[in-house]
Amino acid sequence: MAGYTVSFLPNEIEINCDSGTNLLELAADAGVEIKAVCGGAGSCGKCQVIVKEGKVNKLDQGILSPDKLEQGYVLACKAEVISDVVIEVPPESRLSKHQILLDDDMGDGEYLTEEDLNIDDRVELSPLYQRLELELNEPSLVDNASDLERLYTEINRDRNLPDLKTPLPVLKELASHLREYDWETGVSLAAVNGNYEVAELSAPDDENSDYGIAVDIGTTTLALNLVDLSTGKTVAMEGAYNKQANYGDDVIGRINFVKENDGGLERLHQSIIKSINELIENAATKQGIEHSDIKTAVFAGNTTMAHLFLGIDPNNIRLDPYIPTLNFIPPVRANELGINIKEESWVYCLPGVASFVGGDITSGVLATELSKQDKITLFIDIGTNGELVLGNQDWLMTCSCSAGPAFEGGGIEYGMRAMTGAIELFDIDEETYEMKYSTIDDAPPIGVCGSGLINLIAILNEVGIINRSGKFDSELEHERLRDRDYEKEFVLVPKEEAGIDKDIVITENDIKNLLRSKGAIYAGIRMMLRNMSLTEDFIEQVLVAGGFGNYINLDDAKKIGLLPDLPADKFKFVGNTSLKGAKISLLSKDAFDRVEEIAKKMTYLELSAEDQSQDFMDEFVSAQFIPHTDLSLFPSVTE
Amino acid sequence: MAGYTVSFLPNEIEINCDSGTNLLELAADAGVEIKAVCGGAGSCGKCQVIVKEGKVNKLDQGILSPDKLEQGYVLACKAEVISDVVIEVPPESRLSKHQILLDDDMGDGEYLTEEDLNIDDRVELSPLYQRLELELNEPSLVDNASDLERLYTEINRDRNLPDLKTPLPVLKELASHLREYDWETGVSLAAVNGNYEVAELSAPDDENSDYGIAVDIGTTTLALNLVDLSTGKTVAMEGAYNKQANYGDDVIGRINFVKENDGGLERLHQSIIKSINELIENAATKQGIEHSDIKTAVFAGNTTMAHLFLGIDPNNIRLDPYIPTLNFIPPVRANELGINIKEESWVYCLPGVASFVGGDITSGVLATELSKQDKITLFIDIGTNGELVLGNQDWLMTCSCSAGPAFEGGGIEYGMRAMTGAIELFDIDEETYEMKYSTIDDAPPIGVCGSGLINLIAILNEVGIINRSGKFDSELEHERLRDRDYEKEFVLVPKEEAGIDKDIVITENDIKNLLRSKGAIYAGIRMMLRNMSLTEDFIEQVLVAGGFGNYINLDDAKKIGLLPDLPADKFKFVGNTSLKGAKISLLSKDAFDRVEEIAKKMTYLELSAEDQSQDFMDEFVSAQFIPHTDLSLFPSVTE
Ligand code: FES
Ligand SMILES: [Mg+2]
Ligand SMILES: [Mg+2]
Repeated sequence: MAGYTVSFLPNEIEINCDSGTNLLELAADAGVEIKAVCGGAGSCGKCQVIVKEGKVNKLDQGILSPDKLEQGYVLACKAEVISDVVIEVPPESRLSKHQILLDDDMGDGEYLTEEDLNIDDRVELSPLYQRLELELNEPSLVDNASDLERLYTEINRDRNLPDLKTPLPVLKELASHLREYDWETGVSLAAVNGNYEVAELSAPDDENSDYGIAVDIGTTTLALNLVDLSTGKTVAMEGAYNKQANYGDDVIGRINFVKENDGGLERLHQSIIKSINELIENAATKQGIEHSDIKTAVFAGNTTMAHLFLGIDPNNIRLDPYIPTLNFIPPVRANELGINIKEESWVYCLPGVASFVGGDITSGVLATELSKQDKITLFIDIGTNGELVLGNQDWLMTCSCSAGPAFEGGGIEYGMRAMTGAIELFDIDEETYEMKYSTIDDAPPIGVCGSGLINLIAILNEVGIINRSGKFDSELEHERLRDRDYEKEFVLVPKEEAGIDKDIVITENDIKNLLRSKGAIYAGIRMMLRNMSLTEDFIEQVLVAGGFGNYINLDDAKKIGLLPDLPADKFKFVGNTSLKGAKISLLSKDAFDRVEEIAKKMTYLELSAEDQSQDFMDEFVSAQFIPHTDLSLFPSVTE
Repeated sequence: MAGYTVSFLPNEIEINCDSGTNLLELAADAGVEIKAVCGGAGSCGKCQVIVKEGKVNKLDQGILSPDKLEQGYVLACKAEVISDVVIEVPPESRLSKHQILLDDDMGDGEYLTEEDLNIDDRVELSPLYQRLELELNEPSLVDNASDLERLYTEINRDRNLPDLKTPLPVLKELASHLREYDWETGVSLAAVNGNYEVAELSAPDDENSDYGIAVDIGTTTLALNLVDLSTGKTVAMEGAYNKQANYGDDVIGRINFVKENDGGLERLHQSIIKSINELIENAATKQGIEHSDIKTAVFAGNTTMAHLFLGIDPNNIRLDPYIPTLNFIPPVRANELGINIKEESWVYCLPGVASFVGGDITSGVLATELSKQDKITLFIDIGTNGELVLGNQDWLMTCSCSAGPAFEGGGIEYGMRAMTGAIELFDIDEETYEMKYSTIDDAPPIGVCGSGLINLIAILNEVGIINRSGKFDSELEHERLRDRDYEKEFVLVPKEEAGIDKDIVITENDIKNLLRSKGAIYAGIRMMLRNMSLTEDFIEQVLVAGGFGNYINLDDAKKIGLLPDLPADKFKFVGNTSLKGAKISLLSKDAFDRVEEIAKKMTYLELSAEDQSQDFMDEFVSAQFIPHTDLSLFPSVTE
């Protein structure tokens, strides 16, 4: 098989490959990060690149216009290398340099705030991995229990830990260790499968701390806390984008990638493991500890992320009737996954409820103590997907509303994540429609992030540029409103002001996608209420989780009908509860056990099931209006 | 470091080594089997070899006479190679060719009789590894449990197996397996740590059997049953000598070897694993199956064997207060030990009670159902050690009586194991003291095995050649009775009749060793009775276990005072109960759990403890007479 050289512009990154190699995968291998929202299915069109020299074999390029094809554009996901080639990656197809630089910042507060990271005092420190100091009775001819029985007896003197187990490597050193330290010893226990394992022996009064990590595996971002298990304090925080985004923006894109590509599962699995190991590396370096000082890890992520993390094919998650391989995940050894902490350490994943309600949500319920609340509480996690929980101490209902990644910029032409250059707030002159805006880091605007998009819909509707169904006012004539292919677009920032060489616009189609997203979420809320024979008034508390939640304007969200029209004092923005719950579980065996109970207690409402789907479609259609077809649901907004 | 060549005569086996290499270890590496009763401590004198050419560095050769040293003899265990050498291994130092050939025969009945291998009908077939056939409900939008929950639900439809667990490799194939076979599946469960593990998925109606092995790890011999787990039938039996015998005849010898030699533990560990793998290989070949068809294994052995099997240092077993690392042994993965059955299979060891009462004995109690007997029962296992159990369904007491290996030929000048050429029965003319004898396989005599030695003591005493304290009649003058260094010896077989080039004799010292052994066992029985305030009359049943037990003459054993003087119908020879119990445990999870209860229930009597040792010494001294100082204990013998 012939070997070819592929050079990626503008950074002139060269890589060799065999004939027939997929261009998108090759780019990922070369470290050239190309957008691929649909996961390489050829349907999103985000992975366009330009062939400057040489030839590629073009597979289905159906969504590219003949114009573009003429100009040398190809979908990287549907192109195979068949000669030496030079490929230009245009700016709009790149995951920008900004984003990559930002990774380092995230850990220092942008995504994780101090408040998010404080564990409630309610949690008694009793980590999944804990060290005890013991003084054993010396054996004699009349007290001749074995070393192991003697150890177990002492461990249980003030505790009740039946079914202690000890793995072979520890058994091998037990006799000499106990005698070397004259029957005093440190012993570390790891909780596993309802039992405890004697994971490690140490010198008595050993001064070294044991560490654990709590990790939120988001579809878009990863967040890690390095925690000192003896104090419960977080000593380092790290965050990064999930590098799997190279293979698809949302979980469906990732699953498609696995389905469409040989070795795709292993690739996504390794990608997430590698990303996590980088965070571990950074955190360990900051704290000045060894990887082997990290003795355990708790992960929380949605069901697809959990499958990919474990290397389990997520394909059936995407297929009716949406069945995951598992929701309750047994502990796995770190080395079995390649997680770079102490070898043979146990790695725990928080349990999920269904294909689209995962461990990140049960973790959130734990972190917010929703399952202990008197008040009927609505929990909303708007991430790449939208998941909802409704309930209190007596009952818990949950559903997922396939909101899609619109609020993270997915499917929106100039949508983007909340990062440097993203517009987060607009101001419009009611008369002239002249627009002002503010961007993150005050950088020249390059797109609009989720909070900016919500704000934008609200004000466009308010001033009458779009009507309640999200269409541009057909009467309106304004230089900013102009026709394009089969729709209209409204110029937000003319190219001269923008940080990119184009006008930043919003299209009718963008607006449709945003209304779809918000409509899905609101319809989900309505469906849960319906199934419990409740109305909005019964909701006593709304908890908005997720990085995104921290930045949206509550009034805007109510105005467009994303959040229910309830008094402001009923809302709480609770941050990254997935991470918080993982950390609580790490530090408290009781809490860890409680998440399992929570997952079992949660009733999953499948909105596409026969008895729900018609109602859901009705609710969904009504909720795609601004704020809703039924204005009585939004009295304060419409008054 | 210079490399030397060592050549072993008579077989001219050559091997290269570094300067300073220990000669005994080198011989073992070369496959030249040299006796080493004391495990290389330099105290047994069995490893004598002759340096024919070249020089060795002689370490402590204290027990060799100046004569022998002059003739070129050295103790192999205390000699280091410092030049090219030619070493002759004299016949008396060899583990003879006969013994090695015999290995193959053992499995076919010499050690294991058909009767030993039948599992009682009482045991319900429910193996530690078992396959179920399941038909799962197909999932739907309203029945959307995960694949794993669905599987667990079906497993538990007619069962109660809480805490099912599934390892990652099985999880990875679960989704596609269930769909490939349209929700019908075979599933194999392995019992582990009180839970069950989903060990394997298979096609529905898979015709292939799963196999398991039960293994008795004796100090001297290994015995293995290959069992079809679906029928409970043994399909192949294998036996072999424990190759560790190269490093010491009894457990103390082996422990010494570990203590005295760098890497000694690993060496003994690997030796036993290798021996077991050879048996597995043979059994699998006979049955025409793959190693990977063997899905689980149960091992029973004494506490030292269990430690060495696991690779755990047994040193403290030998040191006052005789503390093993562990008695209750957690299951271990086959590949962690290097046992060549299906990878990741669980390997179980039956639990022991103390340093000198191990899993072979608890296994025996299980196999004989001693713990369910109404009758007060005495269980005696005379192997390389002597272990005793006394009790019934209400109580169980056990002790070990360091009988030593005399009945297996250890410490007896012409003692040997029960194999070709061993004298097993004598006949003596009361007048002339002319002797007849019968040997195993009617071969020319080369030594005396255990049953022969017991018979010999009985008849020598009967005709008055030795008195009740084991001394030769000081008045007796006979050509067969002659002086040697500091003692007397009696010629059993003149060299002309023998299969070796020497007279076969028994010495006063040999007799002393034999009386010591039988005295230790009998004193142990007495001590247990004393501690329960019982006398011999209360013993309603005596179960004699061990290969050796099958061949001794009951009358002889009573005559010399080895076994209590009870009516013959109270005695039962029960064979290899260690193997039998291992097999029962393999085939019945209940039985396996019961052994643990048995081990917990057994009260260990430490004969060297302060409150026992004086009584034991008294009993021991009295029991070294023939049959005993207190003749009233042996009424039928002395009447
Ligand atoms: S079209 Fe190529 S990744 Fe979406
Ligand atoms: Mg999230
Ligand atoms: Mg035995």
